[in-house]
Amino acid sequence: MAVNLVEPDSLLPVKGIRLATVAAGIKKNQSDDLVLIELADNSQCAAVFTQNKFCAAPVSVAKKNMQSKTPRYLLVNSGNANAGTGEQGMQDAFESCALVAQQAGCEPDEVLPFSTGVIGENLPVNKIETALPVLHEKLVENNWLNAGRGIMTTDTKLKGISRQITLQGKTVTVTGLSKGAGMIQPNMATMLAYIATDAVINKDLLQQCLTSAVNISFNSITVDSDTSTNDACVLMATGHAGNDVITQVNDDYKALLNVISEVCLYLAQAIIRDAEGATKFVALQVNSASSISDARQVAYTVAHSPLVKTALFASDPNWGRILAAVGRAGVDFDIDKIKIFLGDICIVSNGGRDVAYTEEQGQQVMNQQEITIRIELQTGDQSACVWTSDLSYDYVKINSEYRS
Amino acid sequence: MAVNLVEPDSLLPVKGIRLATVAAGIKKNQSDDLVLIELADNSQCAAVFTQNKFCAAPVSVAKKNMQSKTPRYLLVNSGNANAGTGEQGMQDAFESCALVAQQAGCEPDEVLPFSTGVIGENLPVNKIETALPVLHEKLVENNWLNAGRGIMTTDTKLKGISRQITLQGKTVTVTGLSKGAGMIQPNMATMLAYIATDAVINKDLLQQCLTSAVNISFNSITVDSDTSTNDACVLMATGHAGNDVITQVNDDYKALLNVISEVCLYLAQAIIRDAEGATKFVALQVNSASSISDARQVAYTVAHSPLVKTALFASDPNWGRILAAVGRAGVDFDIDKIKIFLGDICIVSNGGRDVAYTEEQGQQVMNQQEITIRIELQTGDQSACVWTSDLSYDYVKINSEYRS
Repeated sequence: MAVNLVEPDSLLPVKGIRLATVAAGIKKNQSDDLVLIELADNSQCAAVFTQNKFCAAPVSVAKKNMQSKTPRYLLVNSGNANAGTGEQGMQDAFESCALVAQQAGCEPDEVLPFSTGVIGENLPVNKIETALPVLHEKLVENNWLNAGRGIMTTDTKLKGISRQITLQGKTVTVTGLSKGAGMIQPNMATMLAYIATDAVINKDLLQQCLTSAVNISFNSITVDSDTSTNDACVLMATGHAGNDVITQVNDDYKALLNVISEVCLYLAQAIIRDAEGATKFVALQVNSASSISDARQVAYTVAHSPLVKTALFASDPNWGRILAAVGRAGVDFDIDKIKIFLGDICIVSNGGRDVAYTEEQGQQVMNQQEITIRIELQTGDQSACVWTSDLSYDYVKINSEYRS
Repeated sequence: MAVNLVEPDSLLPVKGIRLATVAAGIKKNQSDDLVLIELADNSQCAAVFTQNKFCAAPVSVAKKNMQSKTPRYLLVNSGNANAGTGEQGMQDAFESCALVAQQAGCEPDEVLPFSTGVIGENLPVNKIETALPVLHEKLVENNWLNAGRGIMTTDTKLKGISRQITLQGKTVTVTGLSKGAGMIQPNMATMLAYIATDAVINKDLLQQCLTSAVNISFNSITVDSDTSTNDACVLMATGHAGNDVITQVNDDYKALLNVISEVCLYLAQAIIRDAEGATKFVALQVNSASSISDARQVAYTVAHSPLVKTALFASDPNWGRILAAVGRAGVDFDIDKIKIFLGDICIVSNGGRDVAYTEEQGQQVMNQQEITIRIELQTGDQSACVWTSDLSYDYVKINSEYRS
């Protein structure tokens, strides 16, 4: 049950990007589990990957291939993470790239592999090999919805968005996909997200644009504090829109960064709305902090507190748990000056419950599906926002039954 | 449902300590909720308290009173934490001490107040005032079991232990109590624990003894990563055993430290065995680390992972989640050298699943109620152990229904 998340009816094709999906039999439920994305000649590509030391084999291979060539193909499978698979996992990831290259007539290091699903099982490369000819045959531009469905695991809703802007009279399209839904505290990237634009932009600025957008979107969400082994976020630019090439931080760059940030934020928040077992969509807004890192630390401490998350699930205005989490965040502040708000209601001031607070006011906010907890640290002028979900019976159910 | 935790049939009195309990009506269920502990003249007292910045009013008052006088009385209530209660909370804590002092004929700052229960509601001091005369009348030495019951909140079992040692032919008794059961990641102390001995020891060494014992016991457990506002652990020494006074780190000190460490470890582990919703008792043993702090960081990261905790609840040998948690701990190691064990079974070596590992072996360990996850970082010679519980439906149930 996703919180106020509507699947898109349609997604705009991006000139120069073709996509195909197929059910290769990697997932147990026979739905599409293999996605091929083709980038036109002369495209640029930027990416960010998980910081987990046990990063999956495909992440290692994708990072390596990104350094040597500009990618022509992305191969994404769901149902198997190819993580914790040691040397065999690396061989399987390289082999997958080689098979795509053979089919497509490119070099193996022009292919980026991505995997998501159960950790620790070997990738069934034979199933991929069997499916590839059909997959390659099916490549078309107008296929983003199917691709979005093909990368889902425990997600209950497809997550995708399209936006258009005009740069010097040329229409520029941005379309993006993401998937969650557990093991989510991205660190430089989220589980999997693919964003494409037909804008003309050089590679350095494309990477800068992605990093900026990711910091305030995918790197500001958490479901369960668990950073995945497979996180990856890719931004592709085909250059087919015909705008003047962006080679510096000018108005065109800013306009493109804005729309890409908007797309990333939508996709990141969609992951939280569809988080495993989520019944609430919660923003932790920390203001007047002495640094962004202090603000993020307080926000994440509250966002990760199982006691705050279960109170949110119960719609219980048990604000003492929020206060206790803020107090243990390891960030310096004056307890007599800090203020904590539930929605617009002040719950804590002068070191304790705000004198005007009533349980009825708190209950009214807690009954909502979308809740903002705002913390005014009063130690500076920096801010950060982190989005999270609640902790429900269904989270436990999904994660104690996921493999069976 | 506690994991292999048996309530003690009896607890040994400690010469010089008298205890009393009464149902003052602070808890809703009419069970005992007010405990008075009296220390004989010339006792020594050591304590450690929560590091939560929003520490409860009684913690502030107890710390202050510890500095000015040697305590004569400890007043403990359950059912109300007197935390997040601002200036009123401080007044209520001071008032409670004054009432005890008035009744007992001592100074208010010779009384230490302690509270545990719901955060953010004012302490019903009038109920305490009404109950105090009866409470004072009931003080007796042989009353530890009732006191242990009187400090319980969501605990399902009484937690207490007694041990005796002989120092220079004199019998020395140590008896301790603790309570959990949620908001447990103690930081210098746990929710509430009271340990008394009749040993003769000076104050500085008593504090040193408590700090050493707490570091490897109460400061090495976690249920849900939430450090309480009310954590406190008190070690009392009445000096009635007649042993030579301990004024330096000699064999007597070491023998006393050993038994007090054993008592603290039992009481800390008892909190985990009776953690909210616990069905498993789990030890995270991290060895061959370059520092104790690295070892603890890895242990706590795995212990806090909701995905590891739900897999433990499901008895699912989903070892990939353990690997992923270790990988995101932010500690440096070589993924090709690290080894991870489930019980005695090696699950991870050479960067992936150990070649000899079988699912059946993992399942056999996971089916047990007591599970050790051992991580050999292979970066040095330091170790740490942290104990935790699993994440079950009942944890969510208890914490989404606690106030209602």
